[in-house]
Amino acid sequence: MRTALVIGTGLIGTSIGLALRARGVTVHLCDHDPGTARTAAALGAGTEDPPEGPVDLAVVAVPPAHVAATVARTLRSGAARGCIDVASVKSGPRRELESLGVDLRTYLGTHPMSGKERSGPLAATADLFEGRPWVLTQATGTDTEVLNLALELVSLCRAVPVVMDAAAHDRAVALVSHTPQLMSSMVAARLRDAEESAVRLCGQGIRDVTRIAASDPGMWIDILSANPGPVADVLAGIATDLGETVRALRALESSDDSKRATGTAAVEDLLRRGNAGRSRVPGKHGAAPLAYEVVAVLVSDRPGELARIFADAGQAGVNVEDVRIEHATGQQAGLVELMVEPSAAPVLSAALRERGWSIRQ
Amino acid sequence: MRTALVIGTGLIGTSIGLALRARGVTVHLCDHDPGTARTAAALGAGTEDPPEGPVDLAVVAVPPAHVAATVARTLRSGAARGCIDVASVKSGPRRELESLGVDLRTYLGTHPMSGKERSGPLAATADLFEGRPWVLTQATGTDTEVLNLALELVSLCRAVPVVMDAAAHDRAVALVSHTPQLMSSMVAARLRDAEESAVRLCGQGIRDVTRIAASDPGMWIDILSANPGPVADVLAGIATDLGETVRALRALESSDDSKRATGTAAVEDLLRRGNAGRSRVPGKHGAAPLAYEVVAVLVSDRPGELARIFADAGQAGVNVEDVRIEHATGQQAGLVELMVEPSAAPVLSAALRERGWSIRQ
Repeated sequence: MRTALVIGTGLIGTSIGLALRARGVTVHLCDHDPGTARTAAALGAGTEDPPEGPVDLAVVAVPPAHVAATVARTLRSGAARGCIDVASVKSGPRRELESLGVDLRTYLGTHPMSGKERSGPLAATADLFEGRPWVLTQATGTDTEVLNLALELVSLCRAVPVVMDAAAHDRAVALVSHTPQLMSSMVAARLRDAEESAVRLCGQGIRDVTRIAASDPGMWIDILSANPGPVADVLAGIATDLGETVRALRALESSDDSKRATGTAAVEDLLRRGNAGRSRVPGKHGAAPLAYEVVAVLVSDRPGELARIFADAGQAGVNVEDVRIEHATGQQAGLVELMVEPSAAPVLSAALRERGWSIRQ
Repeated sequence: MRTALVIGTGLIGTSIGLALRARGVTVHLCDHDPGTARTAAALGAGTEDPPEGPVDLAVVAVPPAHVAATVARTLRSGAARGCIDVASVKSGPRRELESLGVDLRTYLGTHPMSGKERSGPLAATADLFEGRPWVLTQATGTDTEVLNLALELVSLCRAVPVVMDAAAHDRAVALVSHTPQLMSSMVAARLRDAEESAVRLCGQGIRDVTRIAASDPGMWIDILSANPGPVADVLAGIATDLGETVRALRALESSDDSKRATGTAAVEDLLRRGNAGRSRVPGKHGAAPLAYEVVAVLVSDRPGELARIFADAGQAGVNVEDVRIEHATGQQAGLVELMVEPSAAPVLSAALRERGWSIRQ
């Protein structure tokens, strides 16, 4: 790929431009807001000059509601050998394009699984996609040359290509992204009117479960509006589990032993299915989650404590695979949990103890 | 407090013994399993010798189902001036004690909000309770002297006392601990039979929401069996939200503009209530969550990378408040997000860039 046209220079479009420019591709930028395109160009994502002839690949990076019209216009203009979009839902835009009667052989719907809290070209970075999955929704009739151009783009952005069809993509993101968002919001919503004394008892569990409940409602309304069916289907499955769990808990209140036994069995079944599902969530590098050993260190809140811990771990030759900081409530100290390969745990514990750290393991 | 009797030397009882011993209190230990008490004594949590006269405070640290009988026996024996238990639910044991006709003036139900994955005396540590809330469920008629003995114990364990009544405690833990556990299991359970290509798309959001779904079912069945009513009440509220959300999403599939507008409003209301609830979750040191600024650094998977980052941050004089490691799928690199006070973010970014780190902010 030698030339590309990025249409829409927000966070994703500008980040693609930056990544392609860093690998020597000539990138042309345009946006319905000329100021936004100018900013992206100033950041080094490409040039505002229009291409002189057809480019190798056009990348449509506009909001979901405008994808189909923009792709149709691009395909009809002959401005590019191939055209992809990068919207976070895939079935809707394809249906719209089909209803517009456009020849879709040189079009491929894609979705880079990257993002961040901030939007716009100023938030863009060349490494936004590094190591992240990038879904390519190949359809019957998709031109192989266009598929290969898209694969080259994904590779230049250092992302990991995943081929699936549009409907499977939409069901997948409903399951792994859209549903967790709504469930996190539902758990957090229960806290809104809770007594202050109850909120004081929050620990790390609810902190993790509700972290994404802080997300921007506007952005999520756009996403959910474009994928309501698959999300409703997943939520309906959870609603069944939830109803059964409420019934099981009511049975546990009973004085009848056999009712209580039924309730216990239902709760246990849910917890075990949760264990099984959780074990499938990929860990580092997309591999199955490794059973790391935790070395827990009590630290004060003085500056430099984390630096000293990590320096001491480094000097012990131990690679820390993950870290979690458990914040203590009401005092100036916390617990730092270092996740390491099981064989490294005793080495690290001994080394940190020797250097005066208080280890809890 | 000069003398204490710990009845039940598992994780909690032994940790209390260790904490009290470290502050000079004479601790007597007993357990229905003499081997367990011997282990606790060998760890330095106290002596297996029975006390010669009444101790200042007896701590009943046995499983929930045995709490009432053990407390009743202790109160009737005159072995202590006061008696507390440390079980994770509070209304049930108190009701049982009332039905046993025991004089409850010298009894106080308590709950230290600490725990860990492992149980038994070998997992115990003197600092298990440091900075954690410790609920005291004062009732009408609770002897003030016993309340003060319990407050002294909490203080010696360096925990933070929170006074509330038994029913309020049980509702609070249903809300902030038991419900998040079940909801996390329900989201994770959806992944059990998901297609492998869908599971590959998991990101940090679902990883956080489902972390506690890996918990031990046996332990959770014990906890939920002792508090089914309040948990069912919270879940019923979520079930209402869930039903409304499914209806809202179905409305978003409609071609009728006014139906879609109604659906959008309902989804937006949920997301905003989630924002409001999440903003109440205490952050570090029990304070309102601070708006930290994130400085994101791309790191390779070589040993010592985290050590170098934290050393460089320390040399820049910046205190890292929290850290999150975003694992990249499919490559040997990841993103480390350093949370710092907003004023420190530009300082840290500049210092790390100068030292050759790739910063994404």
